[in-house]
Amino acid sequence: MFKTKVCDLLGLEYPIISGGMVWIAKSELAAAVSDAGGLGLLGAGSMNPDELPGEIDRVKELTDKPFGVNIPVADPRSEEHVKTCIAKGVNAVSTSAGNPKKYTPALKDAGIRVFHVVPSPKLAEKAAAAGVDAIAAEGYEAGGHNGFEEITTMALVPQVVDAVDIPVIAAGGIADGRGIVAALALGAEGVQIGTRFAASMESAAHPRFKETMLTVKDVGTVVTGRRFGPTRCVRNSLTDAIHQEENKGATVEELLAFIGEGRASRASVSGEVEEGTVYCGQIAGLIKELKPVKEIVEEMVAQAKAGLEGLYQRNLQ
Amino acid sequence: MFKTKVCDLLGLEYPIISGGMVWIAKSELAAAVSDAGGLGLLGAGSMNPDELPGEIDRVKELTDKPFGVNIPVADPRSEEHVKTCIAKGVNAVSTSAGNPKKYTPALKDAGIRVFHVVPSPKLAEKAAAAGVDAIAAEGYEAGGHNGFEEITTMALVPQVVDAVDIPVIAAGGIADGRGIVAALALGAEGVQIGTRFAASMESAAHPRFKETMLTVKDVGTVVTGRRFGPTRCVRNSLTDAIHQEENKGATVEELLAFIGEGRASRASVSGEVEEGTVYCGQIAGLIKELKPVKEIVEEMVAQAKAGLEGLYQRNLQ
Repeated sequence: MFKTKVCDLLGLEYPIISGGMVWIAKSELAAAVSDAGGLGLLGAGSMNPDELPGEIDRVKELTDKPFGVNIPVADPRSEEHVKTCIAKGVNAVSTSAGNPKKYTPALKDAGIRVFHVVPSPKLAEKAAAAGVDAIAAEGYEAGGHNGFEEITTMALVPQVVDAVDIPVIAAGGIADGRGIVAALALGAEGVQIGTRFAASMESAAHPRFKETMLTVKDVGTVVTGRRFGPTRCVRNSLTDAIHQEENKGATVEELLAFIGEGRASRASVSGEVEEGTVYCGQIAGLIKELKPVKEIVEEMVAQAKAGLEGLYQRNLQ
Repeated sequence: MFKTKVCDLLGLEYPIISGGMVWIAKSELAAAVSDAGGLGLLGAGSMNPDELPGEIDRVKELTDKPFGVNIPVADPRSEEHVKTCIAKGVNAVSTSAGNPKKYTPALKDAGIRVFHVVPSPKLAEKAAAAGVDAIAAEGYEAGGHNGFEEITTMALVPQVVDAVDIPVIAAGGIADGRGIVAALALGAEGVQIGTRFAASMESAAHPRFKETMLTVKDVGTVVTGRRFGPTRCVRNSLTDAIHQEENKGATVEELLAFIGEGRASRASVSGEVEEGTVYCGQIAGLIKELKPVKEIVEEMVAQAKAGLEGLYQRNLQ
């Protein structure tokens, strides 16, 4: 059932990967997703080099299933993170935000499966040429850092599938079994899910961060930083203030100074949900309660199975 | 095959509706879509009241299948268009850009099926309360006028499906059979397709407009007017100039004066593809050639059938 090429590639029961969300995707969440049959990712983007080894060890204590690490390539700490992943022997590394050529050969030489996150068909081709094993095509609806391209999952996934010969993982806008079947219909061989797992029991997000995600309905998320680095998050006092500066014609330098440092950790770690950045995808509108990861995965898979079964029976029988 | 509630509601062979695109969705295109088994729409948004009756008559000459008209409610000519639709007896009216309460009772009293286009779950609830027969949930990837909400098809459709008890038509980001199956997987009972039909032989768009759509790859479309009325179109000299003004902090009044009137017709009718607005969805990246509507519909349906069949066999057998 749902044994796709991504399952074969990564040794998974289900083609479900959790996002490597900064501050949120720590060992407890990654282990829970892997243990439930998916691939849990640690988010190294918010970790210092001395933190990642312990987090990897902790995942291994909690589960003997495959797991991975997300490493933003442009992060100055990325080289040390890559060395840690090789030394510790993780199963997979997802790279993002940077050139996929930089670490792919070393990771693959170490027997680690590599997939790269892209926001456009053109960057998918570049990543495939760099030798990655799979592509995560992430749409504009996704929470957190976003491509300038703003291509949505629905428009992006089939274009990436047509552009490359390796498996594609759909990311952005998926929080239930309907989204999984839709992603597979678009030609993806798996899904990467962030927001739904950030709103889980095992997520490391501050309780107020999680509660804030549950309040998102309808138009709850917005994008700030369109001119220097778009990010999607819950609309709050901070995003309103940033939009006001943007609309007044503030320069990029002025905007960066206005925003300052540490806004993500203020929300995710300290629970400052008005003055911090509450990274969150549009699909949060579907999420009604916090649940344990195992329950989330089981429900998704059951819904995907019933959904596909019904779709087939109604339309082709 | 693909006999959904939208087919039952509108008397269609396939649950495929063409967008009521201004300047482009004229009688030849609408009739071709209806004749191919879908529901062709005339775009009354760019028609004067004395033009619509002849266009309706022309569709009836070309096909005896059901067809419809899109009427933007906020258009000052909408009341006359509604009267024309009632007098001429069209099968369906899609309303958009305005309050669905305004014309729904009169149209339904005349035996016309009504569906309303919405960009958010909240507006879907309002439209359902107004008594429409179906909701078209249109995502941010769609060409032309867009909601301020920026909710993408992948995130929007399941939320709208959960919010209302009437059939939902997915719009935005759909140009082939994969998109159709994905939309149905998300819970939609049909699709509305604009861009793919704008790039057809029967589309009324200027030849240079159609050729421009085919050049869209990757990041080819952009959104302008985020602060007063977002529209998605092909990136060109005009959109670059508008973005420059927006980033400089121009007021809404200044922006409207800068853009002026008639940009859509300059592109669609006169073929001014650099100085006019080339409305176009993100999914244009999938479109490689202009084709007759019948071929487009047949290919989509065949691909949807094969796609769903394969999805079922691979994942549940």
